[in-house]
Amino acid sequence: MKTIKHIGVFTSGGDSPGMNAALHGVAKTAEMNNLRLSGFKKGYEGLIDGDLVQLDSSQLKKNVHRGGTLLKTARSKRFLTLEGRQRAMQILETNKVDALIAIGGDGTFKGLLAFSEICDLPFLGIPGTIDNDLAGTDFTLGFDSAVNTAIENIDKIRDTAESHNRIFLIEVMGRDCGYIAIHSGLGTGADAILIPESGHDFTQLLEKAGSYDREEAFVVIVSEGDELGVEPAAKKIKEINPEVDLRIAKLGHVQRGGNASAFDRMLGIRLGTAAVEALLHGRKNVMAGILNNQLSLTPFDQVVKEHQVNDELRSLLKIFGS
Amino acid sequence: MKTIKHIGVFTSGGDSPGMNAALHGVAKTAEMNNLRLSGFKKGYEGLIDGDLVQLDSSQLKKNVHRGGTLLKTARSKRFLTLEGRQRAMQILETNKVDALIAIGGDGTFKGLLAFSEICDLPFLGIPGTIDNDLAGTDFTLGFDSAVNTAIENIDKIRDTAESHNRIFLIEVMGRDCGYIAIHSGLGTGADAILIPESGHDFTQLLEKAGSYDREEAFVVIVSEGDELGVEPAAKKIKEINPEVDLRIAKLGHVQRGGNASAFDRMLGIRLGTAAVEALLHGRKNVMAGILNNQLSLTPFDQVVKEHQVNDELRSLLKIFGS
Amino acid sequence: MKTIKHIGVFTSGGDSPGMNAALHGVAKTAEMNNLRLSGFKKGYEGLIDGDLVQLDSSQLKKNVHRGGTLLKTARSKRFLTLEGRQRAMQILETNKVDALIAIGGDGTFKGLLAFSEICDLPFLGIPGTIDNDLAGTDFTLGFDSAVNTAIENIDKIRDTAESHNRIFLIEVMGRDCGYIAIHSGLGTGADAILIPESGHDFTQLLEKAGSYDREEAFVVIVSEGDELGVEPAAKKIKEINPEVDLRIAKLGHVQRGGNASAFDRMLGIRLGTAAVEALLHGRKNVMAGILNNQLSLTPFDQVVKEHQVNDELRSLLKIFGS
Amino acid sequence: MKTIKHIGVFTSGGDSPGMNAALHGVAKTAEMNNLRLSGFKKGYEGLIDGDLVQLDSSQLKKNVHRGGTLLKTARSKRFLTLEGRQRAMQILETNKVDALIAIGGDGTFKGLLAFSEICDLPFLGIPGTIDNDLAGTDFTLGFDSAVNTAIENIDKIRDTAESHNRIFLIEVMGRDCGYIAIHSGLGTGADAILIPESGHDFTQLLEKAGSYDREEAFVVIVSEGDELGVEPAAKKIKEINPEVDLRIAKLGHVQRGGNASAFDRMLGIRLGTAAVEALLHGRKNVMAGILNNQLSLTPFDQVVKEHQVNDELRSLLKIFGS
Repeated sequence: MKTIKHIGVFTSGGDSPGMNAALHGVAKTAEMNNLRLSGFKKGYEGLIDGDLVQLDSSQLKKNVHRGGTLLKTARSKRFLTLEGRQRAMQILETNKVDALIAIGGDGTFKGLLAFSEICDLPFLGIPGTIDNDLAGTDFTLGFDSAVNTAIENIDKIRDTAESHNRIFLIEVMGRDCGYIAIHSGLGTGADAILIPESGHDFTQLLEKAGSYDREEAFVVIVSEGDELGVEPAAKKIKEINPEVDLRIAKLGHVQRGGNASAFDRMLGIRLGTAAVEALLHGRKNVMAGILNNQLSLTPFDQVVKEHQVNDELRSLLKIFGS
Repeated sequence: MKTIKHIGVFTSGGDSPGMNAALHGVAKTAEMNNLRLSGFKKGYEGLIDGDLVQLDSSQLKKNVHRGGTLLKTARSKRFLTLEGRQRAMQILETNKVDALIAIGGDGTFKGLLAFSEICDLPFLGIPGTIDNDLAGTDFTLGFDSAVNTAIENIDKIRDTAESHNRIFLIEVMGRDCGYIAIHSGLGTGADAILIPESGHDFTQLLEKAGSYDREEAFVVIVSEGDELGVEPAAKKIKEINPEVDLRIAKLGHVQRGGNASAFDRMLGIRLGTAAVEALLHGRKNVMAGILNNQLSLTPFDQVVKEHQVNDELRSLLKIFGS
Repeated sequence: MKTIKHIGVFTSGGDSPGMNAALHGVAKTAEMNNLRLSGFKKGYEGLIDGDLVQLDSSQLKKNVHRGGTLLKTARSKRFLTLEGRQRAMQILETNKVDALIAIGGDGTFKGLLAFSEICDLPFLGIPGTIDNDLAGTDFTLGFDSAVNTAIENIDKIRDTAESHNRIFLIEVMGRDCGYIAIHSGLGTGADAILIPESGHDFTQLLEKAGSYDREEAFVVIVSEGDELGVEPAAKKIKEINPEVDLRIAKLGHVQRGGNASAFDRMLGIRLGTAAVEALLHGRKNVMAGILNNQLSLTPFDQVVKEHQVNDELRSLLKIFGS
Repeated sequence: MKTIKHIGVFTSGGDSPGMNAALHGVAKTAEMNNLRLSGFKKGYEGLIDGDLVQLDSSQLKKNVHRGGTLLKTARSKRFLTLEGRQRAMQILETNKVDALIAIGGDGTFKGLLAFSEICDLPFLGIPGTIDNDLAGTDFTLGFDSAVNTAIENIDKIRDTAESHNRIFLIEVMGRDCGYIAIHSGLGTGADAILIPESGHDFTQLLEKAGSYDREEAFVVIVSEGDELGVEPAAKKIKEINPEVDLRIAKLGHVQRGGNASAFDRMLGIRLGTAAVEALLHGRKNVMAGILNNQLSLTPFDQVVKEHQVNDELRSLLKIFGS
């Protein structure tokens, strides 16, 4: 195994809070091990264009709290092509990069897998996405921050919902599994939580909500990935009872931003550090994660898995909502 | 003038943070003056239904910070009718209410004006609406809180906008004048602010935003009351440049809730206190407000005015955005 | 085993955010199982005085987010005596309480152990303390919230520290192990973290901080439980360099309050639910916790253990600060 | 009057949130008027050392929200000397600075007054201090932010105070007049507010607080500038009742930092803009402020005044606490 002297790092896919904490973790650990560290800007696009910057460990330390990613990110069509990946490989060679760390989601790691077919440099992945939908880690960077942002906003909506005794349908982000909806719904005492593959009986929901003259608010959290969606759901409810006082809120992209929560800062630092140390121990093509409260390394091809809501969550959903 | 021994108070129209601080102001000042205080629940509906509660000053003190309104609110169709208002008058008589304080927006005060034609009890208004669109006061309860909530969320969206160098169109609340858009747009360094009666040249806006490969985010704040609206605006921009990386966010009802800001708590306490003291001084059918940093009382029929963006704001908009 | 029909619950020791979420978890699960639920107010004092209230599941749901504890808490000298515990046992008998859930820290569980010597009702514990210093669970209710509050305040202090290029010594809560200091120090890019049993070389610290004319802030997080303490530390630093521009901040009790974080709300709900279910399955005298990401039950006498900073944290401290 | 082509700006004294918004206001308005803008770092020290930087309007726009000051600040002993001021004047001449804007407190403006005796360049002041104790403006930059930070922390302390039915003495910042204590005390429903020149009758306060077995928390806000101070106050209370359950909290420097509130961002932008425009209109040696909701310019020698608590505040204090 070639000695690693120079590491490249980039952030890819959708940004999420905690990515900068991970960069800080990578930078500090690289510095402690006398490694040179370059950052590629805008994800895979930066790899292809040779858009790299020297990363300053003290600069990153000052930004450990910030959401977003200092290296920017982008979705790259060019990297999907062989030509693009060959260009990237060239760039790494020219710049004498010995190893590559990528912070992103499943799309990012699929890209690394494809890249590994022509480039045999060691790659290390760090899970950065608010969706928390990767196998190999119980928590992805950004999930805790996104749930906290969601619940702060739901708490605020509750004030106005309670004042009017309204039904509120609140859409939160999430792709296939609805974790943000589950955690934010349970954490705000939601009356119903609609996630993918949960059946939706709006007649029953309206009965539970009571008549138009109910004495309380009725809050429904709807996952973005839900098959129906918040606007059609509202429409269906109004078909059953046209008089219903109902409002919709889509929390949207605020859930992607904001300072990282304490949990995500710690997670970013732990995984950034672990990624560098794993490379120094000769590991490659694995993603660092936390599984059962332990640092863990999982091969890229086992990271992209279909997530199921586990039994405990399923049981909690039955008890607490919907 | 009949001696005031028993005051009634209610909140009406849309809720806004600071209403509970105003209730605390009313309750404490009533207590200091040995007045009985009853709260009517759900706005004018509570007046008509006799849905009143004894208000406990120490209970309200504990909730001085809370958004929403402990007395709830509702839009009342019945109060628009003479019959409804006669019922309300009956209720006030039966319960020996000597004076009435209403916390709400222009609809609330229009209602009191109409009510005053058949009921000669003294009425006192307190401006509670996030729109800040009442004459007679430089600030309405809830405006400062709403702007703070808007800017916190815009700050968060900026993190993800900057990470992707995206154009973001962010819709904020506001009716006819766009004050929340102006304050939150200036306060977050927005690149453009679209308010009612501002011309929209999207070709120019896109030029200012730069090409698809810009090096920064481009954030546009769109007032809800804008003639075009955030979705049509997005559509128009995409017609000019179909490749543009653009997202929409509608902050929505979170701007109505959440704990009241420091400013709104103080404003609520000042106006609640002033309302009771004005009644004790024989004033009637006026709205308490802060004009030019002084407590001020303005007749109801002068409160509902068309607001113009003043010269200073107009000039700031020219300098800082769009 | 006697069938459980009526559960009693109380909160004891220092309060922490998440306790109300746990009460909500207990209440809802009790309701789903048709169990009666009484809450004892003010910890063990309520047990002795028979100060109990019917707990309303929907009321608790509305307060799932709130810090503190709706049942209040108190330190009880009387429960330390046999007489006090006999009174408590009497109360439980008179009120036909079949099982008891206690939310608190190690003092609370020591009390239950002692109580179990004369009272054979099943007891179930839920870990509620911001210190995160109980064996049997990787996280105690309130720790995540406390760290988030600490980092928000440290982030704010950083603004003024950076403006003046000052040294700031910031004291955070924590008893014997310094977890809040470690997590908040790492999460804010602190330059040094002083925890119990870490040697303190202030000459070296001052060298690291640079001369009086340094170009940056220098932030030191000091755990409350540190043998030296923040004021003596400041004094020692000033002895070495009397010209140093240094300020002290003690975050204090704000770390105990505020709305529970997303993590603590979820943890409270999970553990509250697990506690009731454990009782229904015949378990007794154990504390519910999360160990290695699994629900876990640990006997009371194994819960109070001396915590060590684990190897990973020790390594991170070496890399990132002091 | 010489044409102004190049403006210098600096921040001085204690930092406060909103200073960066003011810099943004200055920079953008200077840019719109084709003026060159230089920033001097670290207050008067930068003037003396010629430590200046070109200010980039778009960089400042991105930081409009941030607390602290990007130009840093420092207290300058050298500027108190004639020699220091002569050096500064030299620097301004060498760098062809035509006018100077200073953002700071009364110490800053006293410095400009002294400077004007030897240097006849036009000076313009912007009030930046959290204390809100300058004549010539109803609000100084940072006051609203500081009060918001104070009330957020007091709200959190209330959670733990209520859980234990404790007396809490909470010290907030403020120099001679106690405005932060008044606003934060009123806004959090404090039971007593101790400010300079308010008599302190602790026997009465303890009676009001009730016996040790009270049923509620009792929160006292103590201004930093109070003649007694929070620790002696606690001591006196314990002398009267040694059994009392009482805690102290000093909010300290967190009140100086954190992102600027909406109000302070707007205020900063308004005053920064007004300062440049005033200079372009030939004004000198005045401070821009908001008086009675109007932009206002006040000569430096009328800005440093003894502030009195006005009648309305005095009356509110009587009604609501202490």
